[in-house]
Amino acid sequence: MYLRRALKLLSSGLLTPVGKTPPPTCAALRRGLVLSARRRTPELSSFVARTNTCGELRSSHLGQEVTLCGWIQYRRQNIFLVLRDFHGLVQVIIPQDESAASVRKILCEAPVESVVQVSGTVISRPPGQENPKMPTGEIEVKVKTAELLNSCKKLPFEIKDFVKKTENLRLQYRYLDLRSFQMQQNLRLRSQMVMKMREYLCNLHGFVDIETPTLFKKTPGGAKEFVVPSREPGKFYSLPQSPQQFKQLLMVGGLDRYFQVARCYRDEGSRPDRQPEFTQIDIEMSFVDQTGIQRLIEGLLQYAWPKDKDPVAVPFPSMTFAEALSTYGTDKPDTRFGMKIIDISDVFRNTKIGILQDVLNKPQGTIKAICIPEGTKYLKRKDIETIRKFAAEQFNQEVLPVFLKTNSNWNSPVAKSIMEEQTLELIRLLEPQEEDVILLTAGEHTKTCSLLGKLRLECADLLEARGMVLRDPALFSFLWVVDFPLFLPKEESPGELESAHHPFTAPHPSDIHLLYSAPEKVRSQHYDLVLNGSEIGGGSIRIHSAELQHYVLAAILKEDVKMLSHLLQALDCGAPPHGGIALGLDRLMCLVTGAASIRDVIAFPKSFRGHDLMSNAPDHIPAEELEIYHIQVSRPTDSAAKKDSVTHSPQPEC
Amino acid sequence: MYLRRALKLLSSGLLTPVGKTPPPTCAALRRGLVLSARRRTPELSSFVARTNTCGELRSSHLGQEVTLCGWIQYRRQNIFLVLRDFHGLVQVIIPQDESAASVRKILCEAPVESVVQVSGTVISRPPGQENPKMPTGEIEVKVKTAELLNSCKKLPFEIKDFVKKTENLRLQYRYLDLRSFQMQQNLRLRSQMVMKMREYLCNLHGFVDIETPTLFKKTPGGAKEFVVPSREPGKFYSLPQSPQQFKQLLMVGGLDRYFQVARCYRDEGSRPDRQPEFTQIDIEMSFVDQTGIQRLIEGLLQYAWPKDKDPVAVPFPSMTFAEALSTYGTDKPDTRFGMKIIDISDVFRNTKIGILQDVLNKPQGTIKAICIPEGTKYLKRKDIETIRKFAAEQFNQEVLPVFLKTNSNWNSPVAKSIMEEQTLELIRLLEPQEEDVILLTAGEHTKTCSLLGKLRLECADLLEARGMVLRDPALFSFLWVVDFPLFLPKEESPGELESAHHPFTAPHPSDIHLLYSAPEKVRSQHYDLVLNGSEIGGGSIRIHSAELQHYVLAAILKEDVKMLSHLLQALDCGAPPHGGIALGLDRLMCLVTGAASIRDVIAFPKSFRGHDLMSNAPDHIPAEELEIYHIQVSRPTDSAAKKDSVTHSPQPEC
Repeated sequence: MYLRRALKLLSSGLLTPVGKTPPPTCAALRRGLVLSARRRTPELSSFVARTNTCGELRSSHLGQEVTLCGWIQYRRQNIFLVLRDFHGLVQVIIPQDESAASVRKILCEAPVESVVQVSGTVISRPPGQENPKMPTGEIEVKVKTAELLNSCKKLPFEIKDFVKKTENLRLQYRYLDLRSFQMQQNLRLRSQMVMKMREYLCNLHGFVDIETPTLFKKTPGGAKEFVVPSREPGKFYSLPQSPQQFKQLLMVGGLDRYFQVARCYRDEGSRPDRQPEFTQIDIEMSFVDQTGIQRLIEGLLQYAWPKDKDPVAVPFPSMTFAEALSTYGTDKPDTRFGMKIIDISDVFRNTKIGILQDVLNKPQGTIKAICIPEGTKYLKRKDIETIRKFAAEQFNQEVLPVFLKTNSNWNSPVAKSIMEEQTLELIRLLEPQEEDVILLTAGEHTKTCSLLGKLRLECADLLEARGMVLRDPALFSFLWVVDFPLFLPKEESPGELESAHHPFTAPHPSDIHLLYSAPEKVRSQHYDLVLNGSEIGGGSIRIHSAELQHYVLAAILKEDVKMLSHLLQALDCGAPPHGGIALGLDRLMCLVTGAASIRDVIAFPKSFRGHDLMSNAPDHIPAEELEIYHIQVSRPTDSAAKKDSVTHSPQPEC
Repeated sequence: MYLRRALKLLSSGLLTPVGKTPPPTCAALRRGLVLSARRRTPELSSFVARTNTCGELRSSHLGQEVTLCGWIQYRRQNIFLVLRDFHGLVQVIIPQDESAASVRKILCEAPVESVVQVSGTVISRPPGQENPKMPTGEIEVKVKTAELLNSCKKLPFEIKDFVKKTENLRLQYRYLDLRSFQMQQNLRLRSQMVMKMREYLCNLHGFVDIETPTLFKKTPGGAKEFVVPSREPGKFYSLPQSPQQFKQLLMVGGLDRYFQVARCYRDEGSRPDRQPEFTQIDIEMSFVDQTGIQRLIEGLLQYAWPKDKDPVAVPFPSMTFAEALSTYGTDKPDTRFGMKIIDISDVFRNTKIGILQDVLNKPQGTIKAICIPEGTKYLKRKDIETIRKFAAEQFNQEVLPVFLKTNSNWNSPVAKSIMEEQTLELIRLLEPQEEDVILLTAGEHTKTCSLLGKLRLECADLLEARGMVLRDPALFSFLWVVDFPLFLPKEESPGELESAHHPFTAPHPSDIHLLYSAPEKVRSQHYDLVLNGSEIGGGSIRIHSAELQHYVLAAILKEDVKMLSHLLQALDCGAPPHGGIALGLDRLMCLVTGAASIRDVIAFPKSFRGHDLMSNAPDHIPAEELEIYHIQVSRPTDSAAKKDSVTHSPQPEC
C-alpha cells in the first residue's frame, strides 16, 4: 500500500523531472494571439523574445525554427550545451564550421549560468543518443545565431539541486536559490492553487475580493502587533494580525460574501517556522452557520487541490474538542494513524496498586494508555527512558511501559500487580498485538491526555525514523475540530477568563444560558480545520448582537469597550448574523508541497529571527530620519536587553 | 454623438437600477451543488440560509417557495414591506390574517434597516400594480414565516442614495455607507476586474502570482517610507513604496513572468486624493522589450474591461515625452479633446513687437498659443483676468487673449501690432473658428508649454461648467508616453542629477553613449500609461548589467551603493534582461467607475490626513508598549511641530 503510493508520488508532479507540466504548446504559432477565453494551457512565450521555452520542445517541434532564452546549465566538449529555463532543459548543438566562429565563441566562452539567446532548428538526436530521462531528450537544437545577454560573473554556489546548501546561504542568495527546481515548483503551485481558490470563490460562488487596510489601530489585547509611527506626535498605526474587524464590518455593510488573500502581521520575536508577515485566505459570509462554512471550505479545497494528487474526499470528518483531547491529547490530531489514547480507568477501579488508587480518588483522576505497534522491535530501552524522563520532568507524571513479548507474558514493572481479569480487560480495550508496547500513565484527565498525545507523536517519529511505515506520505487527512470552550482561565491569573480564540466568537446556541452563570462552561461556535496534525485554518460564527458583544467584552473579559466602540455601534445598526474562517496559506502550501519549512513556499522569507538575510533588514536608520515621526531610540536597560533584544552572533540564523 | 453616449451610459451597468446584473439564477435548485467549472453565473445563495437573493426574483420564479434574508428598506400601511440585499429590492406582503399575528408583529414592529429572514411564495402582483422601474416589479413575496435576525437600534443617516452625507460622516460610519448602491457597485466591479486581470495573466499567459515582503529595509532615497521598529534596538523595517527590488530579484531567480496585486505604502503626510497604502497591479517579465510590455497591458485592459462599456481599442496610441510636453504641456495629456498647444514662433520671427522679439532671442524662447473653442461665448471677462493673473503669478509670464468675433476682426490688445500676413499664418496654424478665443504667450519652451497645458485643462473645466460638451463621458482615451529623460536636475541643487523615475531604469539604446559624456541628455526606456489625463501606470526596461547599474548609482546619482549591494551582486549572477510595469489600481478603478475620489473605490480609506475616521487610527500607545521596540516619543520642537505635525481641529477631514 505504502509502496504503491510512494511510487505514485515519485511519478507525480512533485517529483517529476523538469518540464513534465504543463503540456507543450506551439508557442511560435500563437504569439501575438492575446485573447482566447477558451484556451486552457497558458501561453508561456507571448510578448517576449523567445518563440518557445526550453522545456517544452518535443519531437512534434522537429524542423521548426525556434528562439530560446535561458541559462547555461553545462557544456560538454565545446559541442553540447544544455540550456535551462524555468520550464526545463534542452540540449543545444554548438556549430563547428568556420563561418559560425562568432557563435561558437559566445557559446564556448560564456561561464555557466550566463544568460544567452539562441536561434536554430529543432532536429532529432542521432539514433542511440536520445535521453529518455530528459523530457526534451528526443531532440536537440542546431544553433545558427547566438547572443550573450548577460555574463555570469560570480556564483556563491552551484545551481544544481543535488548541491547541498545551508539555509543561511540559500536565504542570503535567495535570487539564486529560486532557480532551483523545487523552489520554482513550490511557488508556481502556490500561485496555481490560489488562482483556483479565487475562481471557486469569485466565479462559482459570487464572493467579492475586498482589500482591507493594514495601517490600523491596536486591538484590545493585540500585544503582538507591530506599530508604525505616524507624523502625529505619539500616535501610531498598528499592523493587524488579521482583517477580523474589517471583515465583520463588511458584513454590516451588506457585502455579504467577502474574501481576501490577506497579508497579516504578528510580532512574536524569534519563533522557529513562524514569519512576521504571513498570508491567509480570509473569508466571511452573512446568514451562514457552521455547517455552511465547512461545506464551503471543503468545496474550496477540493476544487483547488492539485490534479496530480488523490482527490480530496468530502465532507471532512468532524470531532469535538473534548473528543480530540481525550483521544489524541491535542486539539489538532494527526489522524493519519491510530495509537489513540484509551481510558483504562475502569479496569483499575478496584486495584490494589496504591498510586493508581490515589489518582482515581482525585477529581478528574484517570488512567490512560497508548499502544505502540511493534514497539518492542522498534523502540530501544533508551527511548523508553527518555520518554519516562520527559513525562516526569515536563508533566510530573510517571509512565509505565508494558512490553508484550507474547500476549500471556507481559514484561513490565507493574505486570505482577495486575490481576488476570484486569489483563484480559486491558487486552479487550487496547487490542495489542505481539511485540507492541503499551505506555500507561495515571493523572488528571487533561494533563494525562496532553502527555500521551505528545508521546504518541514522539513515538510515531521514532518508529518512522527506525523504518516503520506509519503515515502514508500521499495521505492528506483533513479534520474539523468543533465545540471548543469559549473562554479559558488566564494563565497568569486563573480566576479571570480570556477568550479561547477571540472576543467576537459566538457562544454555542445550547450554552447561551450558561454565559451569565458559568461562562467557563460555555462552548463556542469556533471550528478549526486540521490537516495531518497541523492547524491550517480556524473560524467561527460571530456575535452579531451588540448587547451580547458588550456583555462579553465588559462583564466577562473586562476589556476597555471604548477601544471597540465602532464595532459595537456597527452591530447596533442592523448587523446580519455572520461567520467566517481563515486558512493559513503558508502552512497549507508547506503540507501540500511536502516542504521542510514554510520558508520553502515563500519567495523571500525572513529568518527565524525576523531578518532578511539578503538585504539585511531590519537595519539602522539615522536619528534625523526618525524626527518626522517624533520618536527616538531608547537604549534598552540591561534587564530588558537580556529579555528582548537579539544580539548579533555568528550562529546560524535558521 | 454625446447624447447617444450619455444615454448609453445611463442604460449601462454603472447607472442601472439595483439588480440588473448578474442575470437571475434558480438558486434554490442549485443549492449544495458546489462544483461546476462550466458555470458562468456565480451561485449567490450557496451555503447560506436564503434560497434566493432579493434582487433576483422575476416572473420565472412564480409559485416558488423562497427564503430571503435582507434589510427592511421601508414599510407601507403595515401591508407592504420592501426588503433589500446587495442584489436589489423586493416587495414582501405582510400577512393580515389572525393566524399570522406573530409574523405580522415582527414585520410591522422592526425598525427600518433591521435584518429579517422571511419565507413565502413568489406571486404575481395584482394587475396594474406592477412596478416597471423595479427589476422585481412584476412579482411580490407572500410571507408565511418571518424571523427578526437583528433589530436596528440607531442610524446616523438614512441608507438612501438620495440622502446627501458629508464625506466625514460617510467615513465615520463606513459600514453603513457601504450599503449604498454606488459603493456596492464600485467594490464589486473592482473585484471582478481584478479577477479578470488575474485570469488573463495566470491562465492565459502563464504569469506567476508571487507575494513579496512588506517588511523590508529603507531604499536609497526612499524618504517617503513608513518605518516599523523591530525588537532590536535602533533597527527598523521599512514599508516599501513598491516591490521594485523584489520583482527584479525574481527575474534573476528565473521566475520570468511575475505579477502581484501588491499593497504599497507611501508616507506623504497630508495629500488630497492620496492614500498612505494603495494597490498596484505589479508586473515584471524577462526577455521582454518596451513593445512587449505595452502589448501585454493593452491585452490585459481589453480582457478585463467591463462588458457594459465600449470595448478598449488596441494598440493604444503612443507619444514621446517631448511631444506630450510641446503639444499638451504635460507628461499625462488628456487626449479626449483638442485645444493643442501650437508653436507660432515662426510667425513672429520678424515681428516688431518688442517683448516677443526679446523672448525669441533667448535660448529656448518660443511663442505658443492654444485656441479655445467658442471661448467668446463661454468664457467671461473675469475668467480671462483670472487666467492672466495665474500666468503672471505662477509662471511670471504674460498671456494675451485674442477674441475672434469674426475672422477679420480680432479683438485683442496685440491685434493692431500683428500684420495681415501674420494673421493669415496664425489662422492657418491655429485653425480658429468664429467665437473662439486664442490664448497666446511667449517664454522659455518648457515653461510656456507647462503654462498652456494648465490653461488648457482649466479652460476645458470652465467650458464644461458653462454647459459645453467637450469630453465624452463614455470615452476612455488611453495613451502611452515614452522616451522620458533618464535623469533630471535636482530641484534643490540643479548641478546634480537625480533619477527621473528610479535608478533601475535602463537608458534608451540609442543614447547609451551619452551616459558618459552628457547624462542629462539620455532618454530612458521608461513608459507611462495615461488614461483621460491621469497617469494610471508606469514602468520601464531595467538595467540588467551590474557594471552599468553601479555606474549609474555611484558615478551619476552619487548614491551609497552599499545599500544596494544585494541587487548589484544579483545582477552579476546571470540576471536576464527584464522589464515591467505597475498599474495604479485605485486610480484606474476611480476612472472606470467615474467616482469622485479614489476613496470611493476603497472599502476603508483613510482621510486625506491619513486618519481612519471610523476606528480613530492612528492612536496613542502607552509608553510601556513601546519599550520592546526601544523607542520613545520625542515631543516635537516648536518649529518641527509647525512643519510636520497635524493638529486636531474641528475642520472637515476630507
